[in-house]
Amino acid sequence: MELIAIRQVCVVFLCTMFLSHVLGERSSYIVHMDKSLMPKAFASHHHWYSFTINSLKKSSKSLHRHRKPLELVYTYDNAFHGFSAVLSEDELESLGNSPGFVSAYSDRNVTLDTTHTFEFLSLNPDAGLWPASDYGKDVIVGVIDTGVWPESLSFKDDGMTEIPTKWKGICQAGQDFNSSLCNKKLVGVQYFSKGVGASNPNITLTMNSGRDTEGHGTHTSSTAAGNYVEGASFFGYASGTARGIAPRARVAMYKVIWDEGRYASDVLAGMDKAVADGVDVISISMGFDGVPLYQDPIAIASFGAMEKGVLVSSSAGNEHAIGSLHNGIPWVLTVAAGSIDRSFAGGLTLGNGATITGWTMFPGPALVADLPLVYNKTLSSCNSSVALSSVAYGTVVICENGFIWDQMNHVSMSKASAAIFVSDDPDISTFSDFTFPGVVIGTIDAPTVINYATKGFKPSASISFQKTIVGTKGAPYVASYTSRGPAPSYPGILKPDIMAPGSLVLASWIPNTQTASIGTNIALTNDFVAVSGTSMACPHASGIVALLRGAHPEWTPAAIRSAMMTTANPLDNTNNYIRDSYFNYETATPLAMGAGQVDPNRALDPGLVYDAAPQDYVNLLCSMNFTSNQIATITRSSYKCSNPSSDLNYPSFIALYATNQTTGGLVRKFERTVTNVGGDSGSYKVQVIAPSGSKVSVDPSNLVFGKKYEKQSYSVTVEYNGDKSGGVTFGSITWVEDNGKHTVRSPIVVSPMIPVW
Amino acid sequence: MELIAIRQVCVVFLCTMFLSHVLGERSSYIVHMDKSLMPKAFASHHHWYSFTINSLKKSSKSLHRHRKPLELVYTYDNAFHGFSAVLSEDELESLGNSPGFVSAYSDRNVTLDTTHTFEFLSLNPDAGLWPASDYGKDVIVGVIDTGVWPESLSFKDDGMTEIPTKWKGICQAGQDFNSSLCNKKLVGVQYFSKGVGASNPNITLTMNSGRDTEGHGTHTSSTAAGNYVEGASFFGYASGTARGIAPRARVAMYKVIWDEGRYASDVLAGMDKAVADGVDVISISMGFDGVPLYQDPIAIASFGAMEKGVLVSSSAGNEHAIGSLHNGIPWVLTVAAGSIDRSFAGGLTLGNGATITGWTMFPGPALVADLPLVYNKTLSSCNSSVALSSVAYGTVVICENGFIWDQMNHVSMSKASAAIFVSDDPDISTFSDFTFPGVVIGTIDAPTVINYATKGFKPSASISFQKTIVGTKGAPYVASYTSRGPAPSYPGILKPDIMAPGSLVLASWIPNTQTASIGTNIALTNDFVAVSGTSMACPHASGIVALLRGAHPEWTPAAIRSAMMTTANPLDNTNNYIRDSYFNYETATPLAMGAGQVDPNRALDPGLVYDAAPQDYVNLLCSMNFTSNQIATITRSSYKCSNPSSDLNYPSFIALYATNQTTGGLVRKFERTVTNVGGDSGSYKVQVIAPSGSKVSVDPSNLVFGKKYEKQSYSVTVEYNGDKSGGVTFGSITWVEDNGKHTVRSPIVVSPMIPVW
Repeated sequence: MELIAIRQVCVVFLCTMFLSHVLGERSSYIVHMDKSLMPKAFASHHHWYSFTINSLKKSSKSLHRHRKPLELVYTYDNAFHGFSAVLSEDELESLGNSPGFVSAYSDRNVTLDTTHTFEFLSLNPDAGLWPASDYGKDVIVGVIDTGVWPESLSFKDDGMTEIPTKWKGICQAGQDFNSSLCNKKLVGVQYFSKGVGASNPNITLTMNSGRDTEGHGTHTSSTAAGNYVEGASFFGYASGTARGIAPRARVAMYKVIWDEGRYASDVLAGMDKAVADGVDVISISMGFDGVPLYQDPIAIASFGAMEKGVLVSSSAGNEHAIGSLHNGIPWVLTVAAGSIDRSFAGGLTLGNGATITGWTMFPGPALVADLPLVYNKTLSSCNSSVALSSVAYGTVVICENGFIWDQMNHVSMSKASAAIFVSDDPDISTFSDFTFPGVVIGTIDAPTVINYATKGFKPSASISFQKTIVGTKGAPYVASYTSRGPAPSYPGILKPDIMAPGSLVLASWIPNTQTASIGTNIALTNDFVAVSGTSMACPHASGIVALLRGAHPEWTPAAIRSAMMTTANPLDNTNNYIRDSYFNYETATPLAMGAGQVDPNRALDPGLVYDAAPQDYVNLLCSMNFTSNQIATITRSSYKCSNPSSDLNYPSFIALYATNQTTGGLVRKFERTVTNVGGDSGSYKVQVIAPSGSKVSVDPSNLVFGKKYEKQSYSVTVEYNGDKSGGVTFGSITWVEDNGKHTVRSPIVVSPMIPVW
Repeated sequence: MELIAIRQVCVVFLCTMFLSHVLGERSSYIVHMDKSLMPKAFASHHHWYSFTINSLKKSSKSLHRHRKPLELVYTYDNAFHGFSAVLSEDELESLGNSPGFVSAYSDRNVTLDTTHTFEFLSLNPDAGLWPASDYGKDVIVGVIDTGVWPESLSFKDDGMTEIPTKWKGICQAGQDFNSSLCNKKLVGVQYFSKGVGASNPNITLTMNSGRDTEGHGTHTSSTAAGNYVEGASFFGYASGTARGIAPRARVAMYKVIWDEGRYASDVLAGMDKAVADGVDVISISMGFDGVPLYQDPIAIASFGAMEKGVLVSSSAGNEHAIGSLHNGIPWVLTVAAGSIDRSFAGGLTLGNGATITGWTMFPGPALVADLPLVYNKTLSSCNSSVALSSVAYGTVVICENGFIWDQMNHVSMSKASAAIFVSDDPDISTFSDFTFPGVVIGTIDAPTVINYATKGFKPSASISFQKTIVGTKGAPYVASYTSRGPAPSYPGILKPDIMAPGSLVLASWIPNTQTASIGTNIALTNDFVAVSGTSMACPHASGIVALLRGAHPEWTPAAIRSAMMTTANPLDNTNNYIRDSYFNYETATPLAMGAGQVDPNRALDPGLVYDAAPQDYVNLLCSMNFTSNQIATITRSSYKCSNPSSDLNYPSFIALYATNQTTGGLVRKFERTVTNVGGDSGSYKVQVIAPSGSKVSVDPSNLVFGKKYEKQSYSVTVEYNGDKSGGVTFGSITWVEDNGKHTVRSPIVVSPMIPVW
């Protein structure tokens, strides 16, 4: 079964990088320039880029005599240096010879990737990260997304203090949007549509402003930093007071996604502006699939953000498979999605007193009380209107062996009042479009119900709805949909980094779209919706990044990410290893969940951090098989490849083996340096859990710190002698402080190599 | 069209008084006894009645040798003296010769009748009756009804102080009900089922306890004195904080209505116990149709209550017609139902920009946005599934000239997503079972819509739901259903007394019944419902009686009623005379609404009151064409008919003329005495609005009071020279204080005589 709910909000847009270019036909390109080579004659980068484009016009031997003059679509100067423009192939070729040209690539489409979650994450007013960060009040979260519904209650500014003076952004007026719609919560709203306009010159945007027409941006931004909203629920499910993870942080929305298209140039423009505006964190719940780092707009823009101390928090994607992950970028935070310890239960009670807890999200207080229960083998597939026409009014039918949403459609057109659906599909519990009163039960419970329905005396059934159960055991587990590593764009860094709640997250939505339905013809809407996806996990992490930024303004992006990773929890709420719902609930690997479930209060005080500076990422890039221009496309010109190193000081370890390597074991050595951010002194001992088939040695096995910010280094040697059958093995290295105050855990993965471009 | 919503909760149960008595077959009787004749040998009334019954057993020449021994069902000693028992005709005849026997009549069935309302009534925390009465905190409202759902949030006792020590009732355990369910809000719950059991010896009660299985009692008691409940709504309509009219008063529930039957003996037992328990007010949203006062249990029990200072507030009934009113009892408060200044609007917006406000209560946030609008004359009656099968998915159809709920059923089974229903039926806006997304518009707006649908370019429509509009103009108007006077049981007193909000009143309901539905097969439930009926108006008045009792503990029941009547408002919120929706929105007569819409803050300080003591009611009864036993059935033996008078000191006037009286005018003279309850002194002048065709003179026309509680008398002469064609005419007499502080208004009605038993 496909994940309809997720696809509904996080539809996968295929990358257009291999579009054929018809000679002379123009299309949109993003061009990177080396600003250090800008002649002094130019007053600004904008002038220089304009001149460059104008030069092209003169030199280009176009087949078209009366072409429109070439124009810059965007110029970029914060996240990186360059511009975007609509160019023909020959103009592009000519541009390649211009002074300062670094690289150019086709504008491309981005893939878009949702509250009790704060409780599940143990955030509370009495201790830990919320009070330590003042709930994020001085932090601005820049959200790159589909825009925002400013009237949503999540964006009221009740209780908010004055906007921090560092904020330099604006509230941009536009269609159905005036600039007074911003406030002390929603500090800025801007929109970037030149890219979609350039590639589609004859279209009219349905909503030419920062107003969200999709819901995704409203949901992600309210998840990260929405204000408190009492009485929120999804049709009675998950009811309570909604709030963002950083409820006092500010939201700055950068709308870059349009009903008419999703373009890299717009994403770049939004990220570029966010950095210029002074945001502290960027949250981006989308990604580009199938592109190398030097053509990935998020990789490029996030490098510039990182240089300015802004951590970009991104979603891993919703493609399930091993190696399908996007945003596997060494300098960003890559977030996988897990379940929540919450269930929307349908209570099934049979007339004989037996009770079974199933799953339902029927969007209303349906009354199914002591109705006749019918089981009929010939109609139990519930996919035939003719067969179902024999069902009497006011009965409960049992449906099995079918596609549930198809069964719901058929049953809703019958005279039945409710249905019991039999299914073991784990994805059902991430799905919210329940169109007919009913409950889903597993095949393990089905015989009890069917036996009673066929042999009981006057069999009857009751079903309760709108029940929200909190504290369900075995949570979190890895969501089936979350994209798994290794990262195809660079598998040498273990991705994703961490897992955060992503399944049926309740947050604000736009009020004018269908969010549920009844039967086949009645559409419903709601201000809050519960939806699933890594898009919903990402803003949880982004909110935590914001809180950590508020609590530790001195930490680098790498330090914040390290604190989140080394304190993440690999165990679920039964203290067993987190399981993976996509792989039959086997123990989850770090390729699915990174270091584990993010634990914000522990991240406040990680003890040690694995720090990294921009130069460290440059060194990593220099170790890749990239040309200098490809590297400069990301890093710009200010860095040199003096010290290439694939051994980035990362808080996790991945050792890759080639499946065709037939002789000898794999030996992989890692160097790491940790910085003491705990007490003034501290002494740590290592604890190693070696991956199956591997030997792991750590040297030294003790680390002693005499003062705060002191650094100590160690090395890790992984010797893999497994069978190289393609299996993924994993373990961990944990530095445990002698006083037990801090434990600093890093996952180790040994995985087969996957193809890289 | 029938009022389905009202009938659903307020089903009319036909009176069984004319049941034939099969010789020797026993049935249930209520027997009135003269307790002053009880021989001193008996320790209690209970012993005396038992002896009386046992004597019957011996003397009765029953055809049945092995009959069950005769047993008392109830004994009554507070509201009146007597008992109920299951007797044969010959046993009854024998009983008639027993010492102390007054009267006996068959047990009979009772007819049941059905929250921005506090705002509509101008109750507010800053001034007036709420603060003056401390929100009713020392007052106990006894509710005679179907029981109560004790877990309803309206009966939580948050914020309630200790129970007044005068309370002598209990919390009676029973089926699904333990005695710990009472609290400082719901102080007592008792149930009275011996009557239903005696008449139906082989039945098992479905819920043998005070627990409500119907919803009616939960609704009325929460309306009168429910606690504050935040976030209450009926599927998103009327949302807000629900509260009773006397939010700090106590509720004592007396369950007397059963799924298995509704018996006078149980009603009497409940009222009798309520008086004994020390309630301050009795609220009874039901009545007995077609019975004389001396056989009307409510008339009988309320006389005893009145003697003890307890005002009984009752509903007028839902039978529409002139002369259909029940509870037209001179010593009770009889309440008619009016509308609220609130509308549940469906906003219809056509694709051409035209907007029409209609009516909808579809129970969910349906999304109908820019859908194709279809008008097809051949299917527009929307009563043919075959015709409707031609409608395409996702369209909005226009339905006219039909029964809307039938049309909804048909349309819900089509592929249409919404419907526009054309109807001018005023009852639609009292009805809440809206099963398909749609809106009702009037025939005045229909041509605009149909014209656009047939001639517009790509016609489309949008409909908004769950809109609650407050402050609608022309409110209140008299509800179509409310039963109108004159009172058949005694037309000589103008009834009803006042009007209170009764249409679509939001209050608590039981959670396990259907309160709405979608399509033809999906049932919905809700903790709060918006229902209509005089049953819903009555507890509004009861709550106000409770508040007045709290503010003026010294006032008699007659004084409280007088204060409510003379301050009632005959004008709507546009300052025009209140209109009557049942009579084409013509000006309402006092036979529909009594003195007008109750105005609680003005009732707190009426200036003058028309008081009456038990002897005054006895004098009235003595003027009726009743036997002394019939009178004693109501009054018991302690009163004498020394001074019969049909001129009760009532705050309203009705002059009846016989339609067959062909010669001469009608002259009717009334004597009245008013008591000064305003300032220490005061001077009043009369203002008369004479009914059309009548001359009204008042003597004197000035009243001067030198001190508080001083009484002054005046006479009113009504001389009717109209055409006696059967028309009802009306006017008023208003005493206006010279300083303008108090105005004391009484309605006058001139009406044709209606037949009395």
